[in-house]
Amino acid sequence: MTGSEVSGDTREAIVRATYRALCANGYADTTISAIAAEFEKSKSLLYYHYDGKDDLLEEFLRFVLDQLESELAATDATDAEAQLWNVIDQLLPPEPDAEAMRLRRALVEARANAPHSATYHDRFEESDEVIVDRLAAAVDRGVETGAFRAVDPEPTAEFVCSTAYGAIERAVTLEDQRPIHEARTGLERYVDGCLRAEE
Amino acid sequence: MTGSEVSGDTREAIVRATYRALCANGYADTTISAIAAEFEKSKSLLYYHYDGKDDLLEEFLRFVLDQLESELAATDATDAEAQLWNVIDQLLPPEPDAEAMRLRRALVEARANAPHSATYHDRFEESDEVIVDRLAAAVDRGVETGAFRAVDPEPTAEFVCSTAYGAIERAVTLEDQRPIHEARTGLERYVDGCLRAEE
Repeated sequence: MTGSEVSGDTREAIVRATYRALCANGYADTTISAIAAEFEKSKSLLYYHYDGKDDLLEEFLRFVLDQLESELAATDATDAEAQLWNVIDQLLPPEPDAEAMRLRRALVEARANAPHSATYHDRFEESDEVIVDRLAAAVDRGVETGAFRAVDPEPTAEFVCSTAYGAIERAVTLEDQRPIHEARTGLERYVDGCLRAEE
Repeated sequence: MTGSEVSGDTREAIVRATYRALCANGYADTTISAIAAEFEKSKSLLYYHYDGKDDLLEEFLRFVLDQLESELAATDATDAEAQLWNVIDQLLPPEPDAEAMRLRRALVEARANAPHSATYHDRFEESDEVIVDRLAAAVDRGVETGAFRAVDPEPTAEFVCSTAYGAIERAVTLEDQRPIHEARTGLERYVDGCLRAEE
């Protein structure tokens, strides 16, 4: 049994309950009953449609990924550099609030379990691909328009993606936002010194 | 009861057993009995001196950190740029073998639990400080000798540290070494474009 037979409304309510349970409890302590406690509809719906915690978290990861994709697709940028920063801002918000930090912490915890779960592995691989593709598209646009130097878009995007992930991992595990701010400053310098076309 | 009363030899044997158990089983499945199974001396020594898995893993983290510090202190570099790469090479080996990857995976998994453990939090905070200090010392030397531009060493070191951590996290969770290679290439470009003094 998987969540695929669930109606859109119910799926969204389940995803929201999972999200609240993750924010409140962290990944390790989010049990199916913790999710049920946050679920506003009949608990039996949840137990009927999902096999357990991993099944619910997979649904949640798919939802987060879909949302990330549509947010990235919706961002409108006048130029390549703004387009690049739109993606960076999604990953590393300049002023992340407590909820944004809790969500990222739950994702870092879930991701640490990816080597033990083929499903998590595939979801995170997919989300890395989406992020790297969007970053590479911005870099490619800059190279095409002459705003950026003739760099290779894909490795550049991989580098920016790793920097953002490392800053998030360090920030959420040590509960200290400084790595996020420092990574943004470092990325500004990188765009300045390594990407923007010389005058 | 803590490991502090244990003799040096026994402590080293315990750390090695913990290391082998972590490499073989990953963080989540490393139980005290998995560590005992790898321990060559009397199991009772281990159960007598350590309270449980967390206590043993703390000992292991302390050992890894001490080793990292002495390896970083022992590296001898002719100039600031070589000194910087000595630290980067420790974090992101150019050709990590399977064991180096398994160790990093266990550390990523342990670190994801830092928000739930004051001890882990303190150990990882300390290791980040050691790494950032060593990176900052290399940058500072480059600024002093005129090899590097007049950048601020600390934020530059934070940026490099986050890039390395993100590459490790992505590589170990997806079991794919490409982020490590891409991060090294990106860091070479960063040193080139943002750090090295203009001719």
